[in-house]
Order: sequence, then structure tokens, then C-alpha cells
Amino acid sequence: MRPSGRSSDQMRPVEIQRHYTKHAEGSVLIAYGDTRVLCTASVEQRVPPWLRNKGRGWVTAEYGMLPRSTHTRSDREAARGKQQGRTLEIQRLIGRSLRAVTDLEALGERQVVVDCDVLQADGGTRTAAITGSYIALVDAVESLVRQRVIRSSPLHGQVASVSVGVYRGEAVLDLDYAEDGEAETDMNVVMNEGGGFIEIQGTAEGHAFRRDELDAMLDLADKGVKELLLAQNEALGA
Amino acid sequence: MRPSGRSSDQMRPVEIQRHYTKHAEGSVLIAYGDTRVLCTASVEQRVPPWLRNKGRGWVTAEYGMLPRSTHTRSDREAARGKQQGRTLEIQRLIGRSLRAVTDLEALGERQVVVDCDVLQADGGTRTAAITGSYIALVDAVESLVRQRVIRSSPLHGQVASVSVGVYRGEAVLDLDYAEDGEAETDMNVVMNEGGGFIEIQGTAEGHAFRRDELDAMLDLADKGVKELLLAQNEALGA
Amino acid sequence: MRPSGRSSDQMRPVEIQRHYTKHAEGSVLIAYGDTRVLCTASVEQRVPPWLRNKGRGWVTAEYGMLPRSTHTRSDREAARGKQQGRTLEIQRLIGRSLRAVTDLEALGERQVVVDCDVLQADGGTRTAAITGSYIALVDAVESLVRQRVIRSSPLHGQVASVSVGVYRGEAVLDLDYAEDGEAETDMNVVMNEGGGFIEIQGTAEGHAFRRDELDAMLDLADKGVKELLLAQNEALGA
Amino acid sequence: MRPSGRSSDQMRPVEIQRHYTKHAEGSVLIAYGDTRVLCTASVEQRVPPWLRNKGRGWVTAEYGMLPRSTHTRSDREAARGKQQGRTLEIQRLIGRSLRAVTDLEALGERQVVVDCDVLQADGGTRTAAITGSYIALVDAVESLVRQRVIRSSPLHGQVASVSVGVYRGEAVLDLDYAEDGEAETDMNVVMNEGGGFIEIQGTAEGHAFRRDELDAMLDLADKGVKELLLAQNEALGA
Amino acid sequence: MRPSGRSSDQMRPVEIQRHYTKHAEGSVLIAYGDTRVLCTASVEQRVPPWLRNKGRGWVTAEYGMLPRSTHTRSDREAARGKQQGRTLEIQRLIGRSLRAVTDLEALGERQVVVDCDVLQADGGTRTAAITGSYIALVDAVESLVRQRVIRSSPLHGQVASVSVGVYRGEAVLDLDYAEDGEAETDMNVVMNEGGGFIEIQGTAEGHAFRRDELDAMLDLADKGVKELLLAQNEALGA
Amino acid sequence: MRPSGRSSDQMRPVEIQRHYTKHAEGSVLIAYGDTRVLCTASVEQRVPPWLRNKGRGWVTAEYGMLPRSTHTRSDREAARGKQQGRTLEIQRLIGRSLRAVTDLEALGERQVVVDCDVLQADGGTRTAAITGSYIALVDAVESLVRQRVIRSSPLHGQVASVSVGVYRGEAVLDLDYAEDGEAETDMNVVMNEGGGFIEIQGTAEGHAFRRDELDAMLDLADKGVKELLLAQNEALGA
Repeated sequence: MRPSGRSSDQMRPVEIQRHYTKHAEGSVLIAYGDTRVLCTASVEQRVPPWLRNKGRGWVTAEYGMLPRSTHTRSDREAARGKQQGRTLEIQRLIGRSLRAVTDLEALGERQVVVDCDVLQADGGTRTAAITGSYIALVDAVESLVRQRVIRSSPLHGQVASVSVGVYRGEAVLDLDYAEDGEAETDMNVVMNEGGGFIEIQGTAEGHAFRRDELDAMLDLADKGVKELLLAQNEALGA
Repeated sequence: MRPSGRSSDQMRPVEIQRHYTKHAEGSVLIAYGDTRVLCTASVEQRVPPWLRNKGRGWVTAEYGMLPRSTHTRSDREAARGKQQGRTLEIQRLIGRSLRAVTDLEALGERQVVVDCDVLQADGGTRTAAITGSYIALVDAVESLVRQRVIRSSPLHGQVASVSVGVYRGEAVLDLDYAEDGEAETDMNVVMNEGGGFIEIQGTAEGHAFRRDELDAMLDLADKGVKELLLAQNEALGA
Repeated sequence: MRPSGRSSDQMRPVEIQRHYTKHAEGSVLIAYGDTRVLCTASVEQRVPPWLRNKGRGWVTAEYGMLPRSTHTRSDREAARGKQQGRTLEIQRLIGRSLRAVTDLEALGERQVVVDCDVLQADGGTRTAAITGSYIALVDAVESLVRQRVIRSSPLHGQVASVSVGVYRGEAVLDLDYAEDGEAETDMNVVMNEGGGFIEIQGTAEGHAFRRDELDAMLDLADKGVKELLLAQNEALGA
Repeated sequence: MRPSGRSSDQMRPVEIQRHYTKHAEGSVLIAYGDTRVLCTASVEQRVPPWLRNKGRGWVTAEYGMLPRSTHTRSDREAARGKQQGRTLEIQRLIGRSLRAVTDLEALGERQVVVDCDVLQADGGTRTAAITGSYIALVDAVESLVRQRVIRSSPLHGQVASVSVGVYRGEAVLDLDYAEDGEAETDMNVVMNEGGGFIEIQGTAEGHAFRRDELDAMLDLADKGVKELLLAQNEALGA
Repeated sequence: MRPSGRSSDQMRPVEIQRHYTKHAEGSVLIAYGDTRVLCTASVEQRVPPWLRNKGRGWVTAEYGMLPRSTHTRSDREAARGKQQGRTLEIQRLIGRSLRAVTDLEALGERQVVVDCDVLQADGGTRTAAITGSYIALVDAVESLVRQRVIRSSPLHGQVASVSVGVYRGEAVLDLDYAEDGEAETDMNVVMNEGGGFIEIQGTAEGHAFRRDELDAMLDLADKGVKELLLAQNEALGA
Repeated sequence: MRPSGRSSDQMRPVEIQRHYTKHAEGSVLIAYGDTRVLCTASVEQRVPPWLRNKGRGWVTAEYGMLPRSTHTRSDREAARGKQQGRTLEIQRLIGRSLRAVTDLEALGERQVVVDCDVLQADGGTRTAAITGSYIALVDAVESLVRQRVIRSSPLHGQVASVSVGVYRGEAVLDLDYAEDGEAETDMNVVMNEGGGFIEIQGTAEGHAFRRDELDAMLDLADKGVKELLLAQNEALGA
């Protein structure tokens, strides 16, 4: 019934490729089916101005889509001279999700900037970006540990994200582009390894959704995130 | 236990003042306690370029805070030359919420722009903006009906919004500024008159929130929105 | 003969409401008839970069119109990404007018930023903004005196402003919107409590104005400003 | 007593060089002493969007200072990405002054853009720009008459401008840079050939100025403009 | 003697991967050693405004580096709100190079936009971008031929590019990052399949270069481009 | 055969006028025929942020065209809010050319900013700008020597520039505007007094150019630059 032939609780194949580029402290190419996002984590020995001399670090994210990662070409944001609201919204979400599992004091007065650039879009780019960014962040902070800049990893949790929705009246997991445009509800869920919610963003595109639909979607999200956490651990060789 | 002395399921006093300014087709000053937002709805006989000649209208929103609506003065966005990510995120949320109750085809090829300007901020500005905007939108489309531009109101639902959160371990309704900075979870809920969800945006600020905490918060939101819908109806004399 | 029925030397009713919002050190809602401007004064413990370490303070102003404060909606300057020439011109005028009555050395190395936001426009917004800003500035510097940050008020004068013009061949006081579009000459006059001129900006919209017309306008301005100075004193309880 | 040794009612030497560059329909290099402004008038067969299909033309101006036209180098506005408030204020003034002597309907649906670029600044750049722009505008509209695009000149008046001020207690004509910084009052006056005022912009830099000082300044402005009108006529060979 | 151990006339291994992403009409990942650039060609059924209704098409290019494609992270141009001079310079060069082999009239009134995004930078990104863009352009126009939008390919030539330089006194081919910073001269050469020059851009970084050095560099460029043209043909299966 | 009647190896008359404006440390008006560029060099006692505390200085350039320096008026870059790619490209070229003959350590921690503003354009503005800027730079550093800020000139070479091209099948020197649009190849060459190349930028506008055409163009450039170096020396009274 789903355009891809998947069952309602079935995720697309997830692939995680570490060390995709050579300069970044963490560099991960993640794929949720045809959606491919390059997540690189850069360590910088400085913090934003408002955090100076406070003994704490910072983790932040930036997001972008290559102009032709989509079906029709979008304007290059650098050429238009500003980032769209959607872009800012997504990069704020990624940053919050990563900070939710990071002890900023243990990180010390430095920052990790995670760049999430979508090479190919097919739905769910922000959820793939969060799941991939976590791996890039792990690699970046591990490089600090290896260089003995910090004693141990400042990450106190694991984070992954998936979208769920109501498609043709049924709750489904991990919407792809073909479903996305038609879904009645679209919800992005970010969870940690303990099953706790870090972020929930649900939008009724068609009719408003009921409490029981919400519950069904959250159950699916729980299942999907568990699979993603496993895929992350496998990629990390943990 | 709450700084304001309110019980956990108690909203701040809500005031809705219609026809606050004279030029706009809809103009509402809404207060949730000390939070005061001016919502004006303007009817324009044109639609955005990408919607031209499609026989449908559009409802959109813009949001701004007066520089000294807050405890310390923020930069004026017009002077800085760009709107912040938070601003764009909020105005997109307001627009989606209003469109969720509007039949855009029945509106015809015209748009209603709702401006939400925060005169005084004390927590929950986006939720007050949504609740107030709905009234301004009602007044704007009623003016079109009165002028016989359209035959009947294109609004097929009613929408209101409130924030909920977990404050010192307890689920509370309608966070004010004093609670907001300290809350472990902050969630904005937009609902319609049938109890359906139009938008849910929940963020764990401290520890990740559990499913039972989510349920408690949604129960409170449901109660709060019901009160707000009543206040709206009262203001509309319905 | 005037659209409002006023006599040529009659101002619109002036209302001054202090402490309109709660965060700002000075907050004044001023009305000249239907023109309503919110003036808030914020004290900041820093000065612009070019004034650092010079032992002097600064008073500056920013001006904005809410998008639907006018008959038809104007673009939000924050969304367009720049302030119009008219806006910059007006805020520079307000800043100069306030500095003309302030001893910047006595203020010490801090600045007062006055935000003038037009809630409803009906002609004369810049003159109302100046008259209201003066009260907000008084309240702001008084708060510094009360906190013993400075010993006495650095204000050595009082300032108010009104527009005058030639409407249908006759000099008139305090042009409203209906007159403004049709006036042959439009002049904004800023004066102090000693009857001295702080600023005169007169523009011939139709035919060039003669010296005798100028004199008639300045006589009216003098009358109007005297009334405004009284209204200010009354509001201040002086 | 004036730094330049001039008497209080004495202008700096004025030079007007027509046809200074070869491409523009009007091109004038004007000097008021060491102040040198290049004014070029360009005819364009289009009008601003808001004036389309109204059968009327437009005259507008743009102003800029070369970065090192001043004592110390200023940032290039093109590199900073925005024009300063002062720049916008001046170019609006020049445009209004030129439109005050132009019959826009007789000009037809086309526009003249006058660019005023300051090659060397020594006080009074905006007044020199207005006086020089008038000549450039004459040359531009004459080229339209010669090409029989319009039947006769749409200019119904002549315009020139000079600054006056109060320097060390005395009213003086045509302030140069050495006086400008120290002047107690600085006023720019734009007049036509009939002695009518097109624009008056006076600012008290030190103490507020009195009515008698204003009168003395206006008398000087009248004298100065008369000399400028003669210089213009001489340059035009009229 | 070269850091990479290559001989002076030896290029880095070149890899060309077609159909790298699925949405674009042409999509090529090209590598010159560790330098990797994604080139996508998008066909758009419109031309820039200045080319409308002229019966001709357009080919243009945009260039960007992912923030962490380099040794240390650079600011994201979209976030800074403008493209750097270097970026604009490179994308203009790519566009000119592609147009040099395209018959714009045969293309018809449509445009091909080629996006060159650097995933990993190790010297020579602009030359790799040109060589890869040519393949993407071929694939894009072939799709138009296949769809019978145009009858035959509007490309009348083949284009490739390589850098040459003087490194430690010797002319070398295809500078990598390690050489680039230290090279005395750096020259980018764009040539066609007939050995003609489309573009030469040479810069003395240390001492000025002599005519004999220029000749040696151009001989190397000729050799390098010949190899690149072969690699292109191989990738195209020609 | 050339529109100007010049022989193929003949430059336009070159005029160099020093001390053209009075504020700048170096101020040169240079003309290549009808092309006129004002080059002013400003000494600033600071360096760009990335060069602070490194004991070295900087020489940089900015370039602009007055809006009506060209046949038809171009938008003012300050009003559009950004500099075009062409502008950035040219100012980067001028800066590199000047730095190629400057010992930045001998200059000490200060910078010279050279502004090149085109008063009238008739082809070759960037080459005239480089040749003129050199003189302005000489005058600026000499002023530092005279004031004993530095002991001797930090300039270790002389630089000039000319364009060459292929026009109607023949290599020609110093293209003017009439030739520029029609030339098959356009090349800007920057050389020093030893005949070494500082920069070569050649573009095939029509067919690709051959090696023998390149050689012929470089011979002409060599001749032209020799004449320019003499003209520079004459202007400097050397």
C-alpha cells in the first residue's frame, strides 16, 4: 500500500559510512534509502561570543541542501544571500538534539560545529541528519580524547531520529518523498537510548490528528529509533 | 510552588480586545497575563507569485518582538537586516495553524496576512499570537463576507494554542517567563475545537521526557485550549 | 474647513500614558489624535564603539511602523532586510532632538536607546515620537538617579515637536493624514522650553513657500509646542 | 574671523564645468571651493514600477562619496552592503528639489536619474550637488527636446541650494568643513528663482537657535542662492 | 621532489563517476586525487531576464565549497549572507568555459545551470569542476535530445582544465594543496579538444614569472588537458 | 582598420595627473584615451584582523564604476547592496598586482587601501587602474618615508598593466570599448619593470586562441607595458 511497498512499520535501508571525507574530525555519509546526507563535525578551539570565559563548550549545527539534491533545482542559499526559514528551523533542531546528549562543561571551552549537507533528498533529510550527526560528533570528541585534550567523552547519551506520519489513514514509519507530500500528518521524533523524548514536532497537514493516532505514531517512532540506535552502534563497532 | 502561585493546571488571565487599531480588517490585542501581542489581519487582493492563477487564496503570518518587549533590549531585526531563526520558525508555525482551519479555495485568489507583534513578553508569545490571530482572521474574513466579496466564511474550524511543560518535576499549564527558563520540557500545542492536534512541538530542555510525562502535558493542553476556545467565543460574542 | 473640523491653530487631543510596558526603564504611549506611538527608553551600560573610553554617553533612537499601522499594509522592514530611507531619516531626527537636551558627559559612559514604534499612524508620527520619547528619556534617566548611578539628571532642557503646513492656502497646526497628502507645504518643528529651535525641516510639496508663509507656520509651531510642553509636564506630574 | 578669511556673507568660488564625462545626457562637475561633486543625469525610457502606465515621468537622485573624498577614508558603501542613513537622506533631498521644478507629466513616461558623486569633500556637498544637478538635468531634458522626444522643456523653474549657519555667534553663508564641525547651527536651504523656499533643513548643533538667528540665516541664504542662480545661468550661456 | 612523489608532468589519478545523484539531468562526481567535486547540471525551461525572447539559451554555473571540505572549517556562505569574491570568480570562469563549447542558439530558449560543489578540497577544485561540468552538461543536453526537445547536441567542442605552476623552481602539472601554498606561480588553463586556449589565468605568487617559465607551464597544461579529454571520453563511453 | 585608426601595436594616449584630490596620501587621475580612473591611496594605521600582531602590513584595493561612467547607466552597487562578481574580481587583481611589488614586512603593521573609481569607461579600466594605482601607492609610501614612519620605501618593483586581444584576426594592443565587444580574445597582462609576468588573464570570447596568437599578444603587451613604465617614471619625475 505504501508507494515503496514497505510495511507500515518498516524503515528504509539505513547505511552509515564513517570517515567519508578526510579533513573533518568526524565525517559521516548517512543514507535512509535514497536520502543521503553528509555530516561532518569540526572541532574549533573557540566558543560563540556570548559563551566566552564561562568554562563551557558548545555544539551547534548548520544544514544545507545542494541546489539539485531535490526534484527540481532550488536557489542556492549562498547566492540568494539568506538561509530560508526551513533551513534555520532544521539546523536549530539538529543542534538542540546533539546538545541534549552532550555535557558541555566536560567538553571544555571549545565547540563542535556539525555541517549537514544533503547530497540527495528523498524525504526525512532532517532525521537522517540527526542520526548521522551523532556519529560524526562521536568521532570528533573521540579525536579530542585520543589527543588527550579532554579525559573522556562528554557524551552522556545516544540520539537518533525518525519521521512518522499518517498516510492514507494509517500510521507509518519513516516517510519517503512520495508519501511526504500526501501524508495527513508528519511528525519528526528525536529520542535517546533510554526511550526518552528529546524533541517531538508534529504537524497536521490535512485533518487534525487524534490522540490515538499520536499514540500509534509514537509507537512506530520508538521502534524505528531502536533500529537506528543499533545501526549507529554497529557503525561505531560498539 | 509555581512562581506565580498558580496551580499546575491554571492558566494566566486571558484578555482579548478586538478592534484595537483602526486600519486593519482584523485587529486584536491579546494578553496571557503580562504577555501582550497585537495581532492584525490584512486582506490583500493578491497572492504570492507561486499561487497565481490557481483559484486559491493564502493565509500567512509575520511575527516580531518590539526591541524592548523583553527584559533586556534585543536588536531590532529591521536594523540588523535579517530576521532570526526563532522569528521565522514562529511565524511559520502561526501561518500553518491558521491555514489548518481555512478553506483556501473558498477564500478565493486573495491573501490574509496576519502580523503578530509582541508589545510585552512574559512567556508564551507564540501561543498567544496563534489564539489572538484566529480572532483577527475571523474579523478579516467577516469583513469580506459583509462586503459580499465572498459568500460565507472560509473558516471551517477554530484554533487556539497554549504551552505546557514540566517544571520542577511536575506537568504545568501555560508557562510564564519565570518558569520557562527553568522548565525541563517545554511544549507548544495547537488544537482545534474538536480536540484534534494541529501542531505539537515539544523540546526537552533538561532530561528527556517520558511517555507518561507527555501524556500529562497533553491532558493539561487539552484543558487549556478548551478555556481559550471559550474565551475566543466570548470575545466574538458567539 | 479642515477635514477634522479643527481650527487652523488647533492641535489634536494629546494623550500621554507612562509605564505602558513593564520591562523598559521608560515606556510611554503617546497619542496625537489617532496617531499612537509607543516610545520605550532602554538604558545600556555600554556605548557605541566609536565612543568608548571617552567618558561620555550617548542617546540614540530607532523608529519603526508596525506593518498595518497604516491604511494599507507596508512590508515589514525586518522581512525586507533593510530599513527604508524615510525610517533612517526619522530615527536620526529623533536621536538628534533628544541629544540636544542631554548633557552626554553627565550621563557617563552608558547609552539610552529609545525605540519609537508606531502602533497606529494618522499623520505626524515623527513629531509624536519626539514628544513621547522625551518623557521616556526622563523616566529612564530618573531610574539611574534613583539607583544612584548618576547624581542628577543629565537633561538640561525639554523638547517637543509638532508639524505645521500650508493646507488649502492657509497655515495650519498639527497636520493629520487627511491633510498631509494634500498639503502644499509640510514642516516639522522641534523646539525646546525656551522657544529655541532644535530642528526645522520644511518641504514644499506643491508650490514653493514664501517667507510670510514660513513665518505664519513658525508662529503656529510655537503655539503647538507650548501646549505639548504643558502636556509633558502634566504627565510627569511636574 | 572665518577660517577661510571670507566675510560672513561671502560664498566660496563656484565653478561649473558642463560635459565633464561623455556618456551621460547631462554631466556637470561643480565646485564650491574645494568641494567637488560630479553630477550626471541619465535618461531612462522607463519609470519605477509604482508609476507605470500613469502617463507621468520621474526624476530621482542617488548620492555617494568616494571613500577617500574625505579627510580620513570611509568604508565604501558598496562593500559594506548598505547605504548609510545620511546618504539616503541626502539623495531623497536632491530628488525632491529637482522634482519641485519639473512638470512630471510633460516629461512623459520616462525618468531622469541624477547621480551625485563627491570627488572631494570640504563641506556643503549636498548643496553643491543640488545646484550642479539642476544643470545636468537641464542638459538631459534639452537632449530630449533636441531629439524631439518631447516638445519643450518640462522644467518650470530653476533651483539652487546653499548652506548657512551660526558660527561663533554670527550668521555665515556657505559653511566649509573647517566651520562645519564647530558651527552652532547648520541649515541647508533650497530655493527657486522666485525666492520661494523648496526645502529648509536646519539643525541646532550647539544651543537652540532663535527666531532672529533664523531670519539672519535666511537672508544670507537668499543672497547666496541668487549668486548661484546667476552662476548657473552663466554656465548655461543663458 | 614533489610532496606526492609525482614527476613534474604527472597528473593525479582522475576518476569520473556519472549519474552520482538521481534527480539532476547530469550528475558527475569527479576526483583529481583527493579533490572531489560534485557537478550537477539542471535543465530549466527559462532564461535569465535579460535574454528573454531572443531565441537563445544560456549555460551558467554556481560553485560552492562545503564548509569542511577544507583543512579548517570555513564559514558557510549561505549563513554569512554572501558569496566570497573567490567563489564568484570561479563560477564565472566555469560558466564562460562551458559556454565556449555551446551553441546557445541551438540550445533554444532554456538554460542549463551547473552546480559545482566541492565535497573535499586538495588543490585544483576549479579545474576539476570545469572538467566534470563538461560531462554533466553532455548528459543534460543528451537528455534533451532523447526527449526530442532539441534535435541534436548544441555542444560543438569539448573542454577540460588543469592547473600548472612553478614549484621550487620547476614547472609542474596539476598542483595539489601541499604544492599550492608554496608555488611561486599558479596558472589555471582551460583548453578545448583542438588544443586551443579558452582561458588562461596565471598569477605570480612569489617572483614574477618569465616567458620561458610560461612556455614550460603551457606545454605541461597541454599534456594534462589531453589526458583529461581522454578520461572524459572514456567516461562517456565514446 | 581599428575603429580608432590606431596601428595594432599603438596604445591610446596615456595621461597621469598626480595629487588630483587633496585628502589622500596618494591621488592619481589616470587616462588611457577616454578611460579615466581616479586612484587614491589611503594609509591606515591598522591591518585586517587576520594579520594582527604579525609584524607585517597589507596593501589592498577596492574598485567601483560611477553608475554613468558607462554607455548606459548601471545600478549603483551601494544601492543594490552588493558588489558584482566582476567588481570583486577586478579589485582582487589590483590588490595582488600591488602586493607583488611591495615588501609587506618593510611596510610594517599598517595598510594602504587603494580606491580605484572609474569616472569614465572606454575599455581597459582595470589595466589603467593598476598602472595608476602604482603611482598612488608610491606617493602614499613616500609620505610615510617623509614623516619618518618607515625608513625607506617598501616597494621593490614597479608594476603596470595593459590589455591585448585578437581583433578581426589580428593581435592588437590596448583594446578600447569599440574593439572590446567584438574582440575574439581579450587578455589583461600585468608586468613588472624586469619584463616578468605578475598576472595573465586571457579569455577567448569567440574561437579558442592558438599558441602563436598568445605569443603575438604577449609581445604586444611587453611593448605596451614598457611604454607605461616610462610614463609612470615621467609622472614621478624619476
